[in-house]
Amino acid sequence: MTESSVGKADSARMQTPARLKKGTMRIVPLGGLGEVGRNMTVFELNGKLLIVDCGVLFPEEHQPGVDLILPDFSYIKDRLDDVVGVVLTHGHEDHIGAVPYLLRLREDIPLYGSKLTLAFVEAKLAEHRIKANTNIVVEGEIAQIGNFECEFVAVNHSIPDALAVFLRTEAGTVLHTGDFKMDQLPLDGRITDLRHFARLGEEGVDLFLPDSTNAEVPGFTVAEREIGPVLEAKFARARRRIIVASFSSHVHRVQQVLDAAAMHGRKVAFIGRSMVRNMGIAERLGYLDIPQGVLVDLKQIDTLPDHKVVLMSTGSQGEPMAALSRMANGEHKVQINPGDTVILASSLIPGNENSVFRVINGLMRLGAEVIHKGMAKVHVSGHASAGELLYCYNILRPKNVLPVHGETRHLIANGRLAAQSGVPEENVLLAEDGSVIDMKDGVAQLVGQVECGYVYVDGSKVGTITDDDLKDRVTLGEEGFISVITVINRQNGTIISGPDIHARGVAEEDSVFNEIKPKIAAAIVEAVSNNPNHTTHQLQQITRRVIGSWVSRKLRRRPMIVPVVLEA
Amino acid sequence: MTESSVGKADSARMQTPARLKKGTMRIVPLGGLGEVGRNMTVFELNGKLLIVDCGVLFPEEHQPGVDLILPDFSYIKDRLDDVVGVVLTHGHEDHIGAVPYLLRLREDIPLYGSKLTLAFVEAKLAEHRIKANTNIVVEGEIAQIGNFECEFVAVNHSIPDALAVFLRTEAGTVLHTGDFKMDQLPLDGRITDLRHFARLGEEGVDLFLPDSTNAEVPGFTVAEREIGPVLEAKFARARRRIIVASFSSHVHRVQQVLDAAAMHGRKVAFIGRSMVRNMGIAERLGYLDIPQGVLVDLKQIDTLPDHKVVLMSTGSQGEPMAALSRMANGEHKVQINPGDTVILASSLIPGNENSVFRVINGLMRLGAEVIHKGMAKVHVSGHASAGELLYCYNILRPKNVLPVHGETRHLIANGRLAAQSGVPEENVLLAEDGSVIDMKDGVAQLVGQVECGYVYVDGSKVGTITDDDLKDRVTLGEEGFISVITVINRQNGTIISGPDIHARGVAEEDSVFNEIKPKIAAAIVEAVSNNPNHTTHQLQQITRRVIGSWVSRKLRRRPMIVPVVLEA
Repeated sequence: MTESSVGKADSARMQTPARLKKGTMRIVPLGGLGEVGRNMTVFELNGKLLIVDCGVLFPEEHQPGVDLILPDFSYIKDRLDDVVGVVLTHGHEDHIGAVPYLLRLREDIPLYGSKLTLAFVEAKLAEHRIKANTNIVVEGEIAQIGNFECEFVAVNHSIPDALAVFLRTEAGTVLHTGDFKMDQLPLDGRITDLRHFARLGEEGVDLFLPDSTNAEVPGFTVAEREIGPVLEAKFARARRRIIVASFSSHVHRVQQVLDAAAMHGRKVAFIGRSMVRNMGIAERLGYLDIPQGVLVDLKQIDTLPDHKVVLMSTGSQGEPMAALSRMANGEHKVQINPGDTVILASSLIPGNENSVFRVINGLMRLGAEVIHKGMAKVHVSGHASAGELLYCYNILRPKNVLPVHGETRHLIANGRLAAQSGVPEENVLLAEDGSVIDMKDGVAQLVGQVECGYVYVDGSKVGTITDDDLKDRVTLGEEGFISVITVINRQNGTIISGPDIHARGVAEEDSVFNEIKPKIAAAIVEAVSNNPNHTTHQLQQITRRVIGSWVSRKLRRRPMIVPVVLEA
Repeated sequence: MTESSVGKADSARMQTPARLKKGTMRIVPLGGLGEVGRNMTVFELNGKLLIVDCGVLFPEEHQPGVDLILPDFSYIKDRLDDVVGVVLTHGHEDHIGAVPYLLRLREDIPLYGSKLTLAFVEAKLAEHRIKANTNIVVEGEIAQIGNFECEFVAVNHSIPDALAVFLRTEAGTVLHTGDFKMDQLPLDGRITDLRHFARLGEEGVDLFLPDSTNAEVPGFTVAEREIGPVLEAKFARARRRIIVASFSSHVHRVQQVLDAAAMHGRKVAFIGRSMVRNMGIAERLGYLDIPQGVLVDLKQIDTLPDHKVVLMSTGSQGEPMAALSRMANGEHKVQINPGDTVILASSLIPGNENSVFRVINGLMRLGAEVIHKGMAKVHVSGHASAGELLYCYNILRPKNVLPVHGETRHLIANGRLAAQSGVPEENVLLAEDGSVIDMKDGVAQLVGQVECGYVYVDGSKVGTITDDDLKDRVTLGEEGFISVITVINRQNGTIISGPDIHARGVAEEDSVFNEIKPKIAAAIVEAVSNNPNHTTHQLQQITRRVIGSWVSRKLRRRPMIVPVVLEA
């Protein structure tokens, strides 16, 4: 396989695929291919659909104001009754976050997942007032879901109780890893089960869908266990309060913080709604072992001396409303004081750099010592690096590979690893959201493309905001707007009121517009006198042209122009 | 020095300083402390002002639509006639970019700098139609600029011909490094002159202002020279076109690309206005040595076979309008084809990650092989790492240290290095933009704070857009706006036209507003009938309340509301 050929496959744009034949399996990823988030894949066989994962994507800066991005359900929306189940591989938002929106379309779709995964899903659904049909499965278990025989395999990830799923069908077999890595000494002893992978490999994996997130990263992901001693060393040196920020679902990271606190005689309080909720669930179900007497309520913190306190917080990505950002701005009830230690035991998701560094600078200005993964081993990734992926390819020896979960660069890198391990180049499928892959008799191929857009959650609305609305928002955000209102008397062609100009986000006093108002008025009066039948829409366009060219010349900006002509 | 004490100094908020006494030097950084950019420091002695650097800062995502951010000139704007000169340490935008805006205030302020620096400045000033008073200086030279004796020292950076400046005055001595690193084998053989530093150290450095950018980075910055062999190896493997992206002022990086092209029998074309302009200047002045016959015009590229072509481009930070982004989108006349090699021989400035990865994904989708610093040594920093800074502290043994050029975290890290090297803790000054430092008899201390805001360049306007305007833009960008226009007849209290509702960036069809229009109308009519003396402003506030609470409840959004009530 040449270096460049793997990249070529996915750029072929294809047509709507032919009708699916009996005995052929169709695989359609509706999210997660070409992006990190909104993971969702639909498997279809003999008229029935099985879905693996149903997550959300978080918006980027060119999608302002958007709360969440969902997979595009249009492909399945007319066939919801054919859905036999949704398998959820683990409890992260990018794998479960869109479940409430899917269940709004049909509430009784059966959900399958591990105990912790479903507990997190149920907590989320409760907020949406949805009572789901949940079915707990465990590793090693085989569940017949419609015409899909699903066998679950333990995998290790940055949340406990993650599962891969193996589909055994008349069209062939599929192994979907979900998100995983291969920590050989995980805190809970629950390793990615390579013996199980080996058995499946011997049985035969026709199609393998591996997590691509870290496929570009050479070597092996460091063990989570190695973070403990680093935390302990930092705790040993700290003289005042310690604040640790991490993801609120990272049970093992929190476990290590609790253990380090216990070792150094400190109490821990959880900060942040999701941290409190998730750790409550994890403890109740036995995934988190809180050392006797270590956990205290945030309210009790002020009664303790500084050197007895650890605060376990959300906000590690610099989210402006999260506890840590508000501490950095001095706007949180927990005050940062000189000599406090803040540990960002977390990843730095691309795109969040400015926000995170703003938080770090703010904390340091207040005198805190800030420790992050750039300077100490306080974070390890939850995804398999290239070295680990090669182990998988060699143990499984899949016939076909469809890299999932990643941007284009990650999918291509993972495809190259597959090819290097000996998967024939033509059997490495580089697909995108909406690609259609058909598989029969162990042969999988790209056969088409279905519509698969971004679906935005925006306030109370799902899917009503369009890409054009977002372009409007970007223009409004960068340039502001100028609205020009004129009330005319059509009968005698005079102006009754206006032009009245309102500008926001434009670098000007309102008085600057006095210069252009007479020209707008004159243009409207002239237009009406030339042709009394001009519509208000036409008069609005005239207004737009007059003020638009003036603004462009005078201010060298291109704000949104909103011309309004009213008749009275 | 305790780890935390360095962080404390700068958070003390201070008052306007006392009037400056004769024989005391006052140092006021107007930019570059607490940010990476808009570097500018004012030195005052006996009524005269010397300025070192005058750069711009590029806006972040919370400053939408802003073109550039300037240092705040208010502190000096009434004293421009007292300015004896501006020393420009090197030709990067964050050190020279604001010069045109300063010279608009007084065009004949003398500028001092090296040959290449001033050539870049003059090219920039020509675009602003400004003819400046420029004075070329060279390393080793001593220039008397007003009452400041300025001695220039060669330093190595990611642009040739950079200088540090040593000020010898009756109040004491100051060494300002500008930006620098200590490449011991630079391409041009022009090292940071440590013998010169040593002589100044023996003479005595009362105050040292060192570049802090890489103070958090342990060890030593790798030599620029090490990139050459990496480029050559990539060139040797490439079978089709090669596109290299880098900063348009990085003469030595471009030199290495030209040399690698010559070695492999390829021709090079420059793409991007600033690349063409800067390399023209660099060649004319002898800083760039273009191998015989290697450079061709972009127009000639199509006549050459792919394996004979190198394109040297701008756009390494993912700037949407730059050549590389447009190539990645298929919108540039240079088309990317499968098998092309793209090398990002550049840094990845924090905050640009999403844009850069978007470009990389786009190039890979088109089939290009993309090589960047994450996978190959195709970039080295231009700034001294911690190890190099320690050499400086030990050679100079400064009495006082004021870390410059960096975010808070960088300044604090640099201050710690100073303290570790033996500078007394109380002599490490952690300052911010607008901090006032007075120095006399070798004692430097923070004595106050002057106003020092962000000055935004926005289209044709400088300093008219305010932080409130930017907040409006952020609101408009995230939430859009709803404008409500009602024309009333005050005499009889009726509504003549409207309420007319216009919304942009809001996730709704206009028809959704039909529900609320009668309520707005009723509220206005009721208000006028209750009290005919309601002002239009009051009626507008009533309108805002009615629609605002409806939108918040109905759409769960908080768009900007622009209520307009007109009388006719």
